[in-house]
Amino acid sequence: MNLPGQPPKQGARSLDPHLRRYAARTAGMTASEIRALFAVASRPEVVSLAGGMPHLAALPLDSLATEVADVVATDGLVALQYGSAQGIPELREQICEVMALEGINAHPDDVVVTVGSQMGLDMVTRIFCDPGDVVLAEGPSYVGALGSFSAYQANVVHVAMDADGLVPQALREAIAAVARAGQRVKFLYTIPNFHNPAGVTLAVERRTEVLEICRENGILVVEDNPYGLLGFDGVTYPALRSTDPDNVVYLGSFSKTFAAGLRVGWVLAPHAVREKLVLAAESATLCPPTFNQLVVSRYLSTHDWKGQIKTYREAYRERRDAAIEALEQHMPLGSTWNKPNGGFYVWLTVPEGIDTKAMLPRAITQRVAYASGTGFYADGLGSRQLRISYCYPTPERIREGVRRLANVIKDELELHETFGPSTPRHLSGPQTPSPDTA
Amino acid sequence: MNLPGQPPKQGARSLDPHLRRYAARTAGMTASEIRALFAVASRPEVVSLAGGMPHLAALPLDSLATEVADVVATDGLVALQYGSAQGIPELREQICEVMALEGINAHPDDVVVTVGSQMGLDMVTRIFCDPGDVVLAEGPSYVGALGSFSAYQANVVHVAMDADGLVPQALREAIAAVARAGQRVKFLYTIPNFHNPAGVTLAVERRTEVLEICRENGILVVEDNPYGLLGFDGVTYPALRSTDPDNVVYLGSFSKTFAAGLRVGWVLAPHAVREKLVLAAESATLCPPTFNQLVVSRYLSTHDWKGQIKTYREAYRERRDAAIEALEQHMPLGSTWNKPNGGFYVWLTVPEGIDTKAMLPRAITQRVAYASGTGFYADGLGSRQLRISYCYPTPERIREGVRRLANVIKDELELHETFGPSTPRHLSGPQTPSPDTA
Repeated sequence: MNLPGQPPKQGARSLDPHLRRYAARTAGMTASEIRALFAVASRPEVVSLAGGMPHLAALPLDSLATEVADVVATDGLVALQYGSAQGIPELREQICEVMALEGINAHPDDVVVTVGSQMGLDMVTRIFCDPGDVVLAEGPSYVGALGSFSAYQANVVHVAMDADGLVPQALREAIAAVARAGQRVKFLYTIPNFHNPAGVTLAVERRTEVLEICRENGILVVEDNPYGLLGFDGVTYPALRSTDPDNVVYLGSFSKTFAAGLRVGWVLAPHAVREKLVLAAESATLCPPTFNQLVVSRYLSTHDWKGQIKTYREAYRERRDAAIEALEQHMPLGSTWNKPNGGFYVWLTVPEGIDTKAMLPRAITQRVAYASGTGFYADGLGSRQLRISYCYPTPERIREGVRRLANVIKDELELHETFGPSTPRHLSGPQTPSPDTA
Repeated sequence: MNLPGQPPKQGARSLDPHLRRYAARTAGMTASEIRALFAVASRPEVVSLAGGMPHLAALPLDSLATEVADVVATDGLVALQYGSAQGIPELREQICEVMALEGINAHPDDVVVTVGSQMGLDMVTRIFCDPGDVVLAEGPSYVGALGSFSAYQANVVHVAMDADGLVPQALREAIAAVARAGQRVKFLYTIPNFHNPAGVTLAVERRTEVLEICRENGILVVEDNPYGLLGFDGVTYPALRSTDPDNVVYLGSFSKTFAAGLRVGWVLAPHAVREKLVLAAESATLCPPTFNQLVVSRYLSTHDWKGQIKTYREAYRERRDAAIEALEQHMPLGSTWNKPNGGFYVWLTVPEGIDTKAMLPRAITQRVAYASGTGFYADGLGSRQLRISYCYPTPERIREGVRRLANVIKDELELHETFGPSTPRHLSGPQTPSPDTA
């Protein structure tokens, strides 16, 4: 197997006749290391613990096919036509019912339908961030969010987490440090539930405190909540938005609770912000696909969508258990990880001296892929961490993947003892995710 | 009828607690005047000549319903899952076949599928334009393009058109003027075929000259071609991209040749640019909807899509004829317009002294809506022009709409003779389109 030791296309880039024409922001756009290895990592014999692809096997495809056909046959002239940039009213009403499960009391007028919540994130950043503005975000944070912040040339300042999520005192200190540096915080970006990639959840007793700190300091909160309904203990936490409607912009998605391939997400925002978001969304895509909105709306009104979420929860809990059991069984001393109560991810810290990015090509040679930690930080940290996604493979494959990963780590430790530590290679700034690492 | 004389929400905006938080670019985001009047303009008794909504009535909904159901039933686990940011390979191959009709010889690797060509435009601007960079564009130009350029704080310098499209000498002069001002042109944005809103087509003998001027001056060409296959005389012009593959970024769309509500468009770009576009698209939406790509791909392989385009062409030609006949019959002296050979639009110049933006509320009171000319210029011009879209209403409604519009103009002329000219109100910068004005 011939694995490149360097990111590809460095040579090709220097031959790009358009190189001097790109915007400054474009310099920060780099492919993730997993993409460089994608052709190999996607081979069937490789267990991918890298991806954020949801497990879809339990979806009722036959009844969905019938409903989708009916949408086209009976409502095709609407489904296939342009719609409003804000999204169709019926779906926005249904979205409010979904959010009610998390204690949110919202009006459909304040909902903007987006092409996945990634577009919501991009639009929020578009309307708020000038180059050099600061966004506070947990460290580590969602790689796709870091990509959007980078695209608008915002600077990310990370705030520490512990097992109970974002640490309020660390948030205070980060705000003070940014102020001392004469910079301006535009918003706190946070994933309170079943964090990507850290797997932790913001403790309920911390939620009010985080909201108060942001209010006191005039900082908007952007709450990203794709996994909130995927709690394994049947617990659904109250959204930050439910407590502070005027200072929280909430991002939601059907990608993990229904189907990612439809790309239907939404933003719930204070009214004035919502107006700006709609204008921004129009310049980005004119309108979200009408067809997909009608399909999601039909699904919500004709299917047992809460039952489907329960099915997903059970599938992911079984996979989480497989991952945790295998970690306990195989990982060498000096490795630590969390046990997530929902969502898709375990965050693993490997023994000292190992660089997870440098190790990745060797892991893929050993037929296991993961997302190394540095991609989840804007500041070069994370070289001792990696993310294990247990969402997509079967439990058997997860166990085998973790076993292989443990062996790779053990081999690294041996090499390390024999030859000393590997030299870490850091990229500057966030890397764009491949869809497999979303 | 109570029509507001001012754009709404001015009062609301000043009460926005988030006002001081917005990015500089957000100040330029304003709703189009038609949106302010939308609740009234969308009443059934109003003939809307404002919208860019395609006429869909001839689509074979029943067979489409069958195909769409089959996509879900047989390929649902792909259709409902994340895909690659670049788009599915099969569709990209089919897109190359579509572009071959315009003389384009392209490789599927260089195609990026986008959420409508609006997203393609937004991504191209994202990777090329820093604040203050200059984009050259025909005057008038597509309002959605002006919205994207504004979102990235690019400055638009308009280049004059005549009946044969963009004037090469005007292009040379614009380039020289920008250079004298010490500014930097990033690209020429052009709609060579059946221009929106001007309705004209770039003469074939000018195409090489425009390409050469851009090459000589190191300026990239962005060719936006949503209407190219909708020529009424059965003529399909060679795309600019077909002559100069290395210096043209081409934007295409299925919105006008199949179905806008699926939001499937594409960018064809030189290879290095394509790589940047994929990274930018990932930060914008992760990936385009897989479902929609499979639906378009299935449609192209199972339906007579060229026959459908012929049906669309005939429907639009009939509507164009209705619009032109009614203009000839009803418009007062001093009005001028072009007769488009394809596409959706007639560009009307009204008699001197009339301000089309100021006239719009009165027109809607008289039950006809249009898009006033200033929205299509970044520099405040266009107050004597308006765009008539003949794409959506029936020929009878078009004739009635033009008759009403002529009466409104005649009333304005009378007022003008009695009280002098109305005071033009100019907005600074482009206005975001409502989907109806796309």
